[in-house]
Amino acid sequence: MNDPDTEVTKRLAEWVCRSDFDTVPDPVRAEAARTLLNWMGCAVGGSAHESVDITLRALRPFMGRPQASVLGRTERVDVLHAALLNGLSSHVFDFDDTHLRTIIHPAGPVASALLALAEHRPVSGRDFLHALVLGVEVECRIGNAVYPDHYDVGWHITGTAGVFGAAAAAGRLLGLDAQRMCWALAAAATQAAGLREMFGTMLKPFLIGRAAQNGLAAALLAAEGLTGSERALEAPRGFARVLSTKQDFGAIRDGLGQSYEILLNTYKPYPCGVVIHPSLDACIGLKRQHALTGDDIESVELRVHPLVLELTGNKTPETGLQGKFSVYHAVGVALVLGRVGVAEFTDEVVRDPRVTAVRDRVSASVDETIHEAGAVVTVRLKDGRSFEETVEQCSGSLECPLSDQDMDAKVHALADPLLGEASTQEMIRACRGIAELDDAGAIARAATPAAA
Amino acid sequence: MNDPDTEVTKRLAEWVCRSDFDTVPDPVRAEAARTLLNWMGCAVGGSAHESVDITLRALRPFMGRPQASVLGRTERVDVLHAALLNGLSSHVFDFDDTHLRTIIHPAGPVASALLALAEHRPVSGRDFLHALVLGVEVECRIGNAVYPDHYDVGWHITGTAGVFGAAAAAGRLLGLDAQRMCWALAAAATQAAGLREMFGTMLKPFLIGRAAQNGLAAALLAAEGLTGSERALEAPRGFARVLSTKQDFGAIRDGLGQSYEILLNTYKPYPCGVVIHPSLDACIGLKRQHALTGDDIESVELRVHPLVLELTGNKTPETGLQGKFSVYHAVGVALVLGRVGVAEFTDEVVRDPRVTAVRDRVSASVDETIHEAGAVVTVRLKDGRSFEETVEQCSGSLECPLSDQDMDAKVHALADPLLGEASTQEMIRACRGIAELDDAGAIARAATPAAA
Repeated sequence: MNDPDTEVTKRLAEWVCRSDFDTVPDPVRAEAARTLLNWMGCAVGGSAHESVDITLRALRPFMGRPQASVLGRTERVDVLHAALLNGLSSHVFDFDDTHLRTIIHPAGPVASALLALAEHRPVSGRDFLHALVLGVEVECRIGNAVYPDHYDVGWHITGTAGVFGAAAAAGRLLGLDAQRMCWALAAAATQAAGLREMFGTMLKPFLIGRAAQNGLAAALLAAEGLTGSERALEAPRGFARVLSTKQDFGAIRDGLGQSYEILLNTYKPYPCGVVIHPSLDACIGLKRQHALTGDDIESVELRVHPLVLELTGNKTPETGLQGKFSVYHAVGVALVLGRVGVAEFTDEVVRDPRVTAVRDRVSASVDETIHEAGAVVTVRLKDGRSFEETVEQCSGSLECPLSDQDMDAKVHALADPLLGEASTQEMIRACRGIAELDDAGAIARAATPAAA
Repeated sequence: MNDPDTEVTKRLAEWVCRSDFDTVPDPVRAEAARTLLNWMGCAVGGSAHESVDITLRALRPFMGRPQASVLGRTERVDVLHAALLNGLSSHVFDFDDTHLRTIIHPAGPVASALLALAEHRPVSGRDFLHALVLGVEVECRIGNAVYPDHYDVGWHITGTAGVFGAAAAAGRLLGLDAQRMCWALAAAATQAAGLREMFGTMLKPFLIGRAAQNGLAAALLAAEGLTGSERALEAPRGFARVLSTKQDFGAIRDGLGQSYEILLNTYKPYPCGVVIHPSLDACIGLKRQHALTGDDIESVELRVHPLVLELTGNKTPETGLQGKFSVYHAVGVALVLGRVGVAEFTDEVVRDPRVTAVRDRVSASVDETIHEAGAVVTVRLKDGRSFEETVEQCSGSLECPLSDQDMDAKVHALADPLLGEASTQEMIRACRGIAELDDAGAIARAATPAAA
């Protein structure tokens, strides 16, 4: 049985069941706490978005008992719907974490499932953090096995891979044995879904919540004995072969416990498609350096990696959500306002004539020699001057990661309006110290206005 | 805009919104009532299966208020979970309806979503039946557009197409306008999931319930304004291109309201893979004609359509669920016991030495000239005699449909043990007269023991 295509699911399941937190290196634990904090800030910050209101309004009549928190809000809902709502709100600003190798946003599905479960079934911060590491590992490894083919054809990989991460993480907290962990992964596989066609609409963040909810349900069902295939990943009609033309099963099976994908996780300084970020660093730098105003600008030329136009090539976005996937809007707003935060992706700002006037003067060309984390921006002014800025590694990249201080500032900017500064500070403290908590669910209560 | 690939989703949505029941021909209405009755019998009959117990046990702590019936049982649960549970139980025996063109089981996703909703938001039997016709039309047309490629690669098409049918049917009852109907179809598209790898496990019927539940949620979310793409089916990264190598958009767009796929729906006489049925007709005929016993039999040779071995080629099934996808077990049990009902697909019967002794003497070969509804069976006896039986069109096929009398007998066999004969009779009467009911939800209450 040394064929690399055999026992992929089983070996992954066995590892998730047997992993020992004592063997998880300190940098991995620290990165997991950062991942958690960044996710909580995003979930709290996104909780007032209308897509959360809509989902609550639509499904509230069918929800269960108030078992778990909707982060950033006063409502309490059943565990499965808490996973849905927190996953949704954590992704609605496109400000959450990114595993750059696969463009998966790892925390959304996994942390949303885990925290909702932890509020219902108390668990130590240590076990919580361990499950978070394992869930992220599972989803990112499955992503590695099928990326880029799987993503290129149109799958929303955070949904399709994320549901496995949520199942594995929740399954670990539920104490599943290896067979039931296989069934949980099978239940995840047969629910794996999500289309990139929905990018720019509310169904994009919704899907992240759904992956959390469905992965959590997968683990709960397996725990009670709902049977499934034990070869969900590798079988001829299993996940990897049905949803991808690439299957690198070694990426799932090899070196488990020896490397950790969460060390490759990154956190965004700007709440929009990550491929836009290098251009934004350049534009903000140029604006500051030369005190540019929108009226000064004759034209803007971008030289970018091919993915920039593939993912964010919308020249005329009409809504805030579409603006997050328009390099033209983002560059326009950076040059006009000099900042690119959540407030710069509202419908109003996307339609602001000052912004669209510059946006419409932006052109972009693909340069195969430019790294994904790089860009070259040239701004020509009406007075004839022109400036060029080259970014090699944008802020928030692996090489130039968000500092803890920048992360705190980001979380404050997101959460202060909803929780108040003092409570946000308390939430930050709880996340950073998660490994020492007796009851991980406390962090959810620190992230709701009731605690403020 | 005459490109056949444009406005596929929009035109389908517009038709669902605008269809007038007065224009739905009588044979279509009658077939819809038969579809409903067959589904209810299956759902009641399957309701005592352990997969239903397991799902209830796993998810009950998170369910909402008792709004809707679990058919065949005394529990009442929230609308979304009723859709899940009734969809699951209706498919657990693999005894539900089949749209032979696509092997979709149309009622499971659509009727499960509709009935749960109708219990919560009262609706006339006429509107209910209309929504059922529309939902079946949507899922089967989408299936036609991608079958067989989509199925061949490994998608569980009743899940992937069914979620659209549930969304469309529920969306019609909710009175969505065309834009929101597009969003409902988009929410279905981004949740479309299901792998054939799970056939033979509890995740197979679970997925049908999930399609019902997710499609219903899609409509509820769209009704409140959760935005999605308006090109979910045809876009480059939409459903048909991401999940299939075949896209026949004409099959979705052309002739809406002029033909009805529900007229192609069929109902099984045996609770197992439909491709096995011709061989079973032959074996039961041979056994009766020649008074065969298991001990008489030296060998059994089947000549069958290629799909038989592809779908049901398991030579050594070990569980009842696996037995449903083993032509060898089914033929063995037909020749030994002379009947092939729900009781013949328990774990015990699958392992019964009298059955396995004959099962192991069955061989099958593919004959490309044989129709899907046909088979040739040759039985050789130990005494040297041999008999051959040819079936051209098996019972339950389009050409040889289950009579109303056979349907009633099937429903009684399924439901009597749970509801009692008198209540089952009442349920049958209510289903056949659905178009005259003021409150369609009454049929759910007729299908629970509380009404008995």
